[in-house]
Amino acid sequence: MNTTRRELLAGLGALSLGSMSFSSLAQSPSSSLSVDSARLQRTLEELSVFGRPAGGTFANGVSRFAYSDADLEGRKYAMQLLRDAGLALRVDAAGNIFGRREGRDRTLNPILFGSHIDSVPSGGNFDGQLGSMAAVEVARTLKDRGITTQHPLQIVFWANEEGGTVGSKAVLDGLPSSELNRVINGIRIEDGIRKIGGDPTRLEEGRMMPGSIHCYLELHIEQGGNLDKAGIPVGVVEGIVSIDEYEVEIRGFANHAGTTPMPERHNALLAAAKLIELVQEVVTRDPGRQVGNVGHLEVFPNARNVVPGLVKHTIELRDLSADKIAVMGAEIQRRSQDIARQTATEISIRQTEHDPPAIATPVVQRQIEEAAASLGLKTMRLPSGAGHDAQNMAKLSPMGMIFVPSVAGISHSPKELTRWPDCANGANVLLQTILQVDRLSLT
Amino acid sequence: MNTTRRELLAGLGALSLGSMSFSSLAQSPSSSLSVDSARLQRTLEELSVFGRPAGGTFANGVSRFAYSDADLEGRKYAMQLLRDAGLALRVDAAGNIFGRREGRDRTLNPILFGSHIDSVPSGGNFDGQLGSMAAVEVARTLKDRGITTQHPLQIVFWANEEGGTVGSKAVLDGLPSSELNRVINGIRIEDGIRKIGGDPTRLEEGRMMPGSIHCYLELHIEQGGNLDKAGIPVGVVEGIVSIDEYEVEIRGFANHAGTTPMPERHNALLAAAKLIELVQEVVTRDPGRQVGNVGHLEVFPNARNVVPGLVKHTIELRDLSADKIAVMGAEIQRRSQDIARQTATEISIRQTEHDPPAIATPVVQRQIEEAAASLGLKTMRLPSGAGHDAQNMAKLSPMGMIFVPSVAGISHSPKELTRWPDCANGANVLLQTILQVDRLSLT
Repeated sequence: MNTTRRELLAGLGALSLGSMSFSSLAQSPSSSLSVDSARLQRTLEELSVFGRPAGGTFANGVSRFAYSDADLEGRKYAMQLLRDAGLALRVDAAGNIFGRREGRDRTLNPILFGSHIDSVPSGGNFDGQLGSMAAVEVARTLKDRGITTQHPLQIVFWANEEGGTVGSKAVLDGLPSSELNRVINGIRIEDGIRKIGGDPTRLEEGRMMPGSIHCYLELHIEQGGNLDKAGIPVGVVEGIVSIDEYEVEIRGFANHAGTTPMPERHNALLAAAKLIELVQEVVTRDPGRQVGNVGHLEVFPNARNVVPGLVKHTIELRDLSADKIAVMGAEIQRRSQDIARQTATEISIRQTEHDPPAIATPVVQRQIEEAAASLGLKTMRLPSGAGHDAQNMAKLSPMGMIFVPSVAGISHSPKELTRWPDCANGANVLLQTILQVDRLSLT
Repeated sequence: MNTTRRELLAGLGALSLGSMSFSSLAQSPSSSLSVDSARLQRTLEELSVFGRPAGGTFANGVSRFAYSDADLEGRKYAMQLLRDAGLALRVDAAGNIFGRREGRDRTLNPILFGSHIDSVPSGGNFDGQLGSMAAVEVARTLKDRGITTQHPLQIVFWANEEGGTVGSKAVLDGLPSSELNRVINGIRIEDGIRKIGGDPTRLEEGRMMPGSIHCYLELHIEQGGNLDKAGIPVGVVEGIVSIDEYEVEIRGFANHAGTTPMPERHNALLAAAKLIELVQEVVTRDPGRQVGNVGHLEVFPNARNVVPGLVKHTIELRDLSADKIAVMGAEIQRRSQDIARQTATEISIRQTEHDPPAIATPVVQRQIEEAAASLGLKTMRLPSGAGHDAQNMAKLSPMGMIFVPSVAGISHSPKELTRWPDCANGANVLLQTILQVDRLSLT
């Protein structure tokens, strides 16, 4: 299909019909074609045993961090699911797992969808895992119904998402030696890739080229409390936020906490306290979804009876607008010097990272909204404050992300919970969105 | 001597004459009887080699922490000094070193004076060491001049002062098993005491009884910048401050720093920042010498991309008035609950220690002032913000402390420096004070 932009826009008006236009369907879309929610639940429960704490239950979460033995076992299970769904299995040089289902037109680029099955240590059973198992459930549903799409479908389980979207970075750009040598959870990434069946010397062969994918779609739990609080079942991700990281070093003078008069002190921790409050003030002063965090802080010499002589801490700023956080960062930089003067310390703030935002393709956002509407599900647009493999895919392909609610916004915790009906809703929206983008040209 | 209180007070008026009344002296006190400042310097320089960093000089400071091999070597050197000065040597069950010189009246209690020769790791060459070597210099000077006091003189080098005035605590009260089992610089105190020739099973025998000492005197560097800043050579210590220690636990909720909206956070580090500023405000609001410190702070999980869920930190308050710091502590306790409400965290503050103040005996303070005046040296009264063995001795005996300036108030650092003329002034004031209290009844 090479739909022109005009045809595409004309077509959008009819999209609320969703899969109704599909010849194989006799019923209305919401009732006619939906995933087997009990099977999806069962699959997530089966996956959850790999990395489950000894003696625990599903509610105790999972430690299936990348390259661990639990990760290896979980990957084996997930690969068998793909085979059983009739997909052609392939593991690339970075250890990413792909399952391909051919479409009616072999000349078309595939629709790529999935997520990751690795977790943080002491994580939950939904982050990444829902998007991965929902992708399997979509393939099973299409197989059960005998539906073949125009485009090939390709499921992906990205390797080592939690360690910094390693698998999708490898597919985008390869991995520099600094990244291959980085140690995560006690194992060098290079060794980890070998352990899961990849080949770090052949990453170049696994790279995907821009224009080689029809559309990338990822279903994920929100990992924030917005949907849960608003009581809205589906989030349409506007994009993945820009992140600016800073490292702050505050140099005072370590001295005896009993004998040094208060006005003579050069107290680095007092300066840090003022800086933490400044970050809070700058981030929360204006309305919006921007966030800021001082999450890591170290005090030297860190003794109860010594005036702190040195404090090192991080500042992290996130927003969909890179400009907004740049302005916030500049204000913090500038006003930190007032704090340095007030506290007789030296403050240096160094930017260590700038991740640009990854904007979800607007037409794909609208497809997700239409898909949800066809299922009678309310949606809300929102940014993703967390990073996802989708941010790398956005550089290669049209990209869309579907969010479902996390109860109380908890994630990266055994308490992470997305209710089963929300899981099924997410899988159904993913299925409908795939069917819709199958009929569109997105370039 | 059993001078009545009336005789004592009458005598005070003539005390500015200092040692002039001494029959063996022909000249004015300041010129007639003074220590050999070059010899004092040489002795401090000789002591400084035990624990000196490899390849370093005197300016590189010393690591002679208690029970280390360097401590053992320094103690051997110091014991030889006592023998050479004609003193009778004794090491008690806690490892404290005593050197005794008999007086004319064997029925009188001894005048006890000295300090400690252990240092903090990477410490300086003056803290404790000046008071110890000045005591030796006083004994040498009296020996050279053939002067015998009425009271016996007893020099002491307290063991393990830097680890918590362990030696003088043992003499005051013995040591509880919790203290004997405490590990300091990698060695259990009990084992350390054995290593330096003490016997932890016989501490009871080494206890000193109240009323068994005529007067305790200690010369020490100020470890603060007050004397140096004021250009005053001699400090008369009013007392050793009271110390209240608190442990603070702030419970928030650790959550994703990208996905958790700012108003939904329970940021324990933001609460800690506000509490650190509260401590500063409460301590500095009113004039006075009170001090407060948040010196130790830990953040959990301490990751740049996680909202801090837990912070633990200390608060330390010091002043000569125990009431003043109790009021400050209560205000911090009370107002911390406002911070807890503002930040949606739970704050608990638990008092872990209360050290009462040790007031220097007023009549001894006046003796030190008179002694300094007789030498033409200006004095200033000031509290000691640091702890000293003198605080334990104050419970057994009249007590006085003489301070000399620390350049820029630096101590517990290789940069710690007291200029040689100030060292000599301190030793001379110590000598004159000993001669004066020798002629008084202090009880």
